[in-house]
Amino acid sequence: MGIEFQILHKDKYTRARVGILKTAHGSFETPVFMPVGTYGCVKSMSPDDLIETGTKIILANTYHLYLRPGHKLIEELGGLHRFISWNHPILTDSGGFQVFSLAKLRKITDEGVLFQSHLDGSKHFIRPEDAISIQRSLGSDIIMVFDECAPYPVEKGYIEKSVQRTTEWAKRCLTAMKGNRDQAIFGIVQGGVYMDMREKSAKELVQMDFDGYAIGGLSVGEEKEIRNRIVRETVPLLPTAKPVYLMGVGKPEDIIDAVTAGVDMFDCVIPTRNARNGTLFTKEGKIVIKNACYSKDERPVDEDCDCYTCRNFSRAYLRHLFTTKELLVYRLNTIHNLFYYQQLMEEIRKAILEDRFMEFREEFYKRINKKEENLC
Amino acid sequence: MGIEFQILHKDKYTRARVGILKTAHGSFETPVFMPVGTYGCVKSMSPDDLIETGTKIILANTYHLYLRPGHKLIEELGGLHRFISWNHPILTDSGGFQVFSLAKLRKITDEGVLFQSHLDGSKHFIRPEDAISIQRSLGSDIIMVFDECAPYPVEKGYIEKSVQRTTEWAKRCLTAMKGNRDQAIFGIVQGGVYMDMREKSAKELVQMDFDGYAIGGLSVGEEKEIRNRIVRETVPLLPTAKPVYLMGVGKPEDIIDAVTAGVDMFDCVIPTRNARNGTLFTKEGKIVIKNACYSKDERPVDEDCDCYTCRNFSRAYLRHLFTTKELLVYRLNTIHNLFYYQQLMEEIRKAILEDRFMEFREEFYKRINKKEENLC
Repeated sequence: MGIEFQILHKDKYTRARVGILKTAHGSFETPVFMPVGTYGCVKSMSPDDLIETGTKIILANTYHLYLRPGHKLIEELGGLHRFISWNHPILTDSGGFQVFSLAKLRKITDEGVLFQSHLDGSKHFIRPEDAISIQRSLGSDIIMVFDECAPYPVEKGYIEKSVQRTTEWAKRCLTAMKGNRDQAIFGIVQGGVYMDMREKSAKELVQMDFDGYAIGGLSVGEEKEIRNRIVRETVPLLPTAKPVYLMGVGKPEDIIDAVTAGVDMFDCVIPTRNARNGTLFTKEGKIVIKNACYSKDERPVDEDCDCYTCRNFSRAYLRHLFTTKELLVYRLNTIHNLFYYQQLMEEIRKAILEDRFMEFREEFYKRINKKEENLC
Repeated sequence: MGIEFQILHKDKYTRARVGILKTAHGSFETPVFMPVGTYGCVKSMSPDDLIETGTKIILANTYHLYLRPGHKLIEELGGLHRFISWNHPILTDSGGFQVFSLAKLRKITDEGVLFQSHLDGSKHFIRPEDAISIQRSLGSDIIMVFDECAPYPVEKGYIEKSVQRTTEWAKRCLTAMKGNRDQAIFGIVQGGVYMDMREKSAKELVQMDFDGYAIGGLSVGEEKEIRNRIVRETVPLLPTAKPVYLMGVGKPEDIIDAVTAGVDMFDCVIPTRNARNGTLFTKEGKIVIKNACYSKDERPVDEDCDCYTCRNFSRAYLRHLFTTKELLVYRLNTIHNLFYYQQLMEEIRKAILEDRFMEFREEFYKRINKKEENLC
């Protein structure tokens, strides 16, 4: 279909691997991090800014774009890439997660989901076929199936029904993709925290032969150890030749754990949302830029960082901009945090390619475990 | 002192002229427009963005920087240029205007002004000497005297006293500048809408031999015709060899009128504030980007504009970003409006240099007078 995935190198001691994923709008190496551009814009960032941070692919939200400005409008204007002036890969989620977390849910049937917009309360009925049709209009490079995101915690009986429905919907999504040569489609493994449900979900999806597989329904409140176990045990159920995407994860340490387990793709709002809240990532730990200790601090956020923000501005200036609520600071902070994430991914790929991923991982943990004492 | 001003060309039929002003942080051609960077940041813009719009000098607000982060802190960190990473000319206003318009004014005496911060109600007493000392700490290239900005409308008796005080304060400001070789200082002609008061003010200031002269206390609610007359009649009272700065003006047509009268320097929040409110300047008139007529408009804001925004984004996308309150739109709009203003200044300078400023002016008026019918 619309993508080609090639594995360049596998780690000797873990399932970590470096690959290259080719889409209709260009290629990128994996493991890859996708910043979240909810409304067709990674908050505060221009396409040029994203390129400068090392971003190669972004995620956009089908649910949000369906409501505003509408997928038909975007299609009329030549598709999402053109609309947002980003001539590089885009993955769209299916809207499933947002319908279940953001909208006022009215009714789930086997046919689809009736929900009310979180914006104006208007009612919408979305079937799996609609979710695909919308994503086809948007023209994203990677389409996600429409899945049911179960709440957490929830009893196993609910998950059983939910997994069955997600499988049925996945089939209908595949059918709705017929004739589509430019776009790829990923299935989403659900099953909550029940490994037998995850196995069932993975098995059924793998039979359908998707272009890639996502692990969904995690990062919803479960313990980190539970999530790590689910990821670790789910990846081996998926075909090694296909890319694996862990949805909505996560913190740098979570990403490293998941890479170890064999995950290739990630998205998360943490770097961008934290940036807007004034929390900045550094190799020595996190900086809360509003803290008074930075008021006269002439150093950049991270002395080893080569991002636009660190090349030009001091912690003192960023703190001043944050204190006075100057719009510029949200952009400067976001540039830094995304650069940090993309550098991390670059280092991960390099470590895997050089057969020293486990050393890298240990170094990383040692560094973040001593971080608290270093920062004010 | 800290600047050199050279007149390159004078218009044959008006007082319009092109000059070059050399400061400790570089030179620029006049007539020049200075974007307003209240807190040491032109709202939403990075230094690189400003350069891209053609901006050569910015204005910063002494009053705001005195309150946050404090001039002593900025001085400790190497001065304002370094603090904000802008290695180009900066003019600081004296804080006079803000004390009289923004702060809660407590008491004006001949000694100085007692006011309460608009932020936290804290009390501050600022003498003319303090205003200079603060601006010396900031290290701006052009310092403004501390003046009394009279309210409008107000009876002539008030203006008489106010002009007298402004003259006294100007003398004290000059004394406080002693030994300062890097920074220049401009006097500010006051006098409200009373031409005899303006004459008195100008005469007294000119005797003190400032590096340049500003016309202050306008754009405070008076009619456009009155302002134009005051400017037209005040400029000839000032030495032709010195730069003339009309404070807080204005709309493109106001700038053209003032250039005609012989003004060299301008500052105004209109392009930046309008940008954030979604009003965009084009050669055909103003665009209110939230209007529904732009929802499917694939054209850039201005088809003849070469700014980053117009090179990359459609009106439809800007409208979408504005509707969804995406932070990026405030920057993209500001880039466009400042580029428009700086292009206008470039065209004004070119027209003067090519001895066709009056034709340019007539063309400009013809264009903006037919604008309303063209835009939705």
